[in-house]
Amino acid sequence: MPRPQEFDTTEALHQAMGVFWRQGYEATSLTDLLAATSLSKSSLYATFGGKRELFIAAFDAYRQARARDAHRVLEQGSARQAIEAFFHLLFADVNAVEPALGCMSINQAVELAPRDPEIRQRVVQDLHSIEEALTRATERGQQEGSLTSLRPARDLAKLLVLAFPGLQVMARAGYSRQELDEALQLLLTHLER
Amino acid sequence: MPRPQEFDTTEALHQAMGVFWRQGYEATSLTDLLAATSLSKSSLYATFGGKRELFIAAFDAYRQARARDAHRVLEQGSARQAIEAFFHLLFADVNAVEPALGCMSINQAVELAPRDPEIRQRVVQDLHSIEEALTRATERGQQEGSLTSLRPARDLAKLLVLAFPGLQVMARAGYSRQELDEALQLLLTHLER
Repeated sequence: MPRPQEFDTTEALHQAMGVFWRQGYEATSLTDLLAATSLSKSSLYATFGGKRELFIAAFDAYRQARARDAHRVLEQGSARQAIEAFFHLLFADVNAVEPALGCMSINQAVELAPRDPEIRQRVVQDLHSIEEALTRATERGQQEGSLTSLRPARDLAKLLVLAFPGLQVMARAGYSRQELDEALQLLLTHLER
Repeated sequence: MPRPQEFDTTEALHQAMGVFWRQGYEATSLTDLLAATSLSKSSLYATFGGKRELFIAAFDAYRQARARDAHRVLEQGSARQAIEAFFHLLFADVNAVEPALGCMSINQAVELAPRDPEIRQRVVQDLHSIEEALTRATERGQQEGSLTSLRPARDLAKLLVLAFPGLQVMARAGYSRQELDEALQLLLTHLER
């Protein structure tokens, strides 16, 4: 038997995530959310509680999905290829009709984190978990020889984490796919001896 | 003779800049702007035209002031010290009562640039001008010997520009001054051989 209520909730969350990701929190009105989710105002409040609660739920759904993607790509191919693929997640949608959305967590580091401890905690957790995943990939690369730098893997991972928002900012500022790729390749040379 | 009207305009612009810098564009209401500038609604519209026009004027005033600061610090001391001081501009206010404001241009790359070509153009111009200034500082460092990397100065400057938003994101996400300094020192080791 289909379960229409559950389907609607998941789908509504997904649609809300798209709006918040594209527009940010403040620029998103209740009207935008009702249009995107096809929910009535009373259903939206009954199901999610309100704009802020819906945002937190959508942000957490985004974070889970992105963490899964990141872990998947970081385990495929050589570590060097895997790290490249990880960054490509960030600007995979460049050259599409809309400007790149980038990483919602980085967007929220800028938009809400400074004045919202619940968001800040999530952003810090995401940055730490990216650093962990990149440290493991870098260690693997040094063992297998696809990365030749003699620096500690942790330090290389920290450099990659530091550069991550920069690529995002370039993507959101409308840099071309080619310019983004050049910046990424330049960054990756710092993983070589 | 004092010129009260002119004084008010400059001061009002400065106050508006503070609000936009702290809160971003969308989260700033007309009420916030009236409170910050001590202008009446009719004076604000007569003087600046409206919220968007006031934002653009405040953003441009910010950009001019920050460009002056950046050029000033990048010319003082050894190039290595100068580059360090340049990054300290970004998190000078960490440990103050409020979270760091960071760079308004980077904030706007995230908030408005994707959907506003006039803002996007300003952000791209700022990133290019930072790259130019850091390229000159890096060249100077290589000549005087305070930077020993043999990589092209332009490539080193590009790495610094790429890392700039990362430090900002860390600052806005509430990382401590010590963590920010450690990340900066790690970055600067990439300017060494």
